[in-house]
Amino acid sequence: MPSKGRLGELQSQLEQHRLDAFLVTHLPNIRYLCGFTGSAGVLTVTLRDAIFFTDGRYADQASAEVRGPKITIRKGKSAMASAIEWLARCHSLRRVGIEPSRMNVAERDFIARALGRERKIVNAPLMVEQMRTVKSADEIARIRAACELGVHLFEKLVQKIRPGVPEREIASQLEFAARRAGVEEMAFPTIVAGGKRSALPHGRASQELIPSKGFVVCDFGVILSGYCSDMTRTLHVGRPTAESRRVYESVREAQQAGLEAVRPGKTVGEVDSAARKVLYNKGLGCFFTHSTGHGLGLEIHEGPRVAAGQQEALRPGMVITVEPGVYLPGKWGVRIEDTVAVTETGCEILTKCPKDLLTV
Amino acid sequence: MPSKGRLGELQSQLEQHRLDAFLVTHLPNIRYLCGFTGSAGVLTVTLRDAIFFTDGRYADQASAEVRGPKITIRKGKSAMASAIEWLARCHSLRRVGIEPSRMNVAERDFIARALGRERKIVNAPLMVEQMRTVKSADEIARIRAACELGVHLFEKLVQKIRPGVPEREIASQLEFAARRAGVEEMAFPTIVAGGKRSALPHGRASQELIPSKGFVVCDFGVILSGYCSDMTRTLHVGRPTAESRRVYESVREAQQAGLEAVRPGKTVGEVDSAARKVLYNKGLGCFFTHSTGHGLGLEIHEGPRVAAGQQEALRPGMVITVEPGVYLPGKWGVRIEDTVAVTETGCEILTKCPKDLLTV
Repeated sequence: MPSKGRLGELQSQLEQHRLDAFLVTHLPNIRYLCGFTGSAGVLTVTLRDAIFFTDGRYADQASAEVRGPKITIRKGKSAMASAIEWLARCHSLRRVGIEPSRMNVAERDFIARALGRERKIVNAPLMVEQMRTVKSADEIARIRAACELGVHLFEKLVQKIRPGVPEREIASQLEFAARRAGVEEMAFPTIVAGGKRSALPHGRASQELIPSKGFVVCDFGVILSGYCSDMTRTLHVGRPTAESRRVYESVREAQQAGLEAVRPGKTVGEVDSAARKVLYNKGLGCFFTHSTGHGLGLEIHEGPRVAAGQQEALRPGMVITVEPGVYLPGKWGVRIEDTVAVTETGCEILTKCPKDLLTV
Repeated sequence: MPSKGRLGELQSQLEQHRLDAFLVTHLPNIRYLCGFTGSAGVLTVTLRDAIFFTDGRYADQASAEVRGPKITIRKGKSAMASAIEWLARCHSLRRVGIEPSRMNVAERDFIARALGRERKIVNAPLMVEQMRTVKSADEIARIRAACELGVHLFEKLVQKIRPGVPEREIASQLEFAARRAGVEEMAFPTIVAGGKRSALPHGRASQELIPSKGFVVCDFGVILSGYCSDMTRTLHVGRPTAESRRVYESVREAQQAGLEAVRPGKTVGEVDSAARKVLYNKGLGCFFTHSTGHGLGLEIHEGPRVAAGQQEALRPGMVITVEPGVYLPGKWGVRIEDTVAVTETGCEILTKCPKDLLTV
């Protein structure tokens, strides 16, 4: 739940970065700071104040949801137009921070014109994104609930997988069951990739049919109460060859090594290298072509990046994925992924679901 | 289908706007110009050349889809990094256009640093968006197919609407049927809004139950072969009151007036005012709180805006929605929407579906 603490923490960071005001325009950041879940709003934070601007369509919703900032709606004006009108009158706010990777050039130019030459628009660092990397107990509970539902849906999904069924049919059934269970939307396009398509790291469910023999990679996430889940399991249709088994077990071992490296004090880069090393030692390193994982929460991809060389230290409350894979081009691929929360001593696996090679 | 003609037309516009190069980063614009449907790419257009940059994940897809530009992939580099590296070497390209409402500030600053002081980054006008407002015969055929599927899905949807069923259940069933019929994704979050919720112009399907009596607004769109459909019908559960009937018929009359105003030479503002006038004359004008429509195609909202005072002239090949509504706050609402293509003499309704008040 949004708390006054988050705004307070942000305000102390503004001081640190010598910003008089900060325009929060990225909707997940707005939701994190004040609870608003609608699709049009600007949160203006100054050292002492916070004002949430939206438009008439969201009057009721803003009153019901927003905690902390005052709410301002100007008839017939967009959230941004209202925010700028307000800022233009506050001449003492000289250094105004924006979110440079979230605001487009046209908006920035519009603000610059409105504020005139005596004010400076500053590209602010990723303050809110950084705060969001460490989750509260409530946030972890929501991610856990999303992951538990994901596991439940996966168990039902497995029953639908058989030769000759289109991948998209399986994905549709999964998504239908998810919606019925109260899911707001899927966290990303569902991946169901059979046979040769399992060699595509992002093999979005297609019209192709599940083959009579081969791997099927299933990777999906749900959004429940605003928070994402993410998990991948790879199962096999028909009897796997010795090579298929060997690769599967290697990926599983790499994933286990990655999980074991997740604990406070380790860096995300060390998690990546723990998983990667296993595959290198088995001669499969060059087929693991993506990074080991990513943070998730209100968004499916957020900090920290769990990738080679990344120096960010793991802290209790971070939630990340650990998802090594091996992709043999033109042949097939395997990926195993869990969502985990960093605890005081290690990690809690939130997607509790068996990882033995399942054959159907 | 993407044609060389589109790139050629864009190149002649570059000349007109005195641009030496133009960085196309908005994915629907890229798709329109060269056919690429993936999620990472930059199309660089100069007066004589066009080069499409993507990354290693999209090598096969780019070869299969891209027509016109050369394809360039640099190992381990993102599409944007490759594009900038290329631009940085072409010193004769002094004025480089970007899409200011599509590129974020961080990216712009990155490009500016890479290109140095002797080059100028220019906010280009909406050239591709403007080209996209007039559709080719192939594009209209795709939108027609999407709309026909939409109508078919609506007919099945109607059978699911009865008191006590959650709105979200109805939306889930619609979306499941859509996916099965080959729909890539829904064009926007499906609206099923019953009873009091029908008074919300954007009443996304919720956990609320369909009431035993009252209006239900159903507004949805599908994406088929890349192109959107959009339609709204409002039906009534139980016997409507005289007031409900009167308002419904007023909206219907307004929508009909809007449709009759759609023909080449009229402005989009005239379509808006034709529909709005009917509601004003019936004392309902102040309850029609949004604009009359919007263009659609590769995106659900694109040009032209069908809104009060807009001066853009309708041209054959434009595809727009006509969707007046009346929303009585705290009570209920009615909206009727068609997608139509502008023809030489008037318009073709693409969402052919009855508009008599349907009661269930």
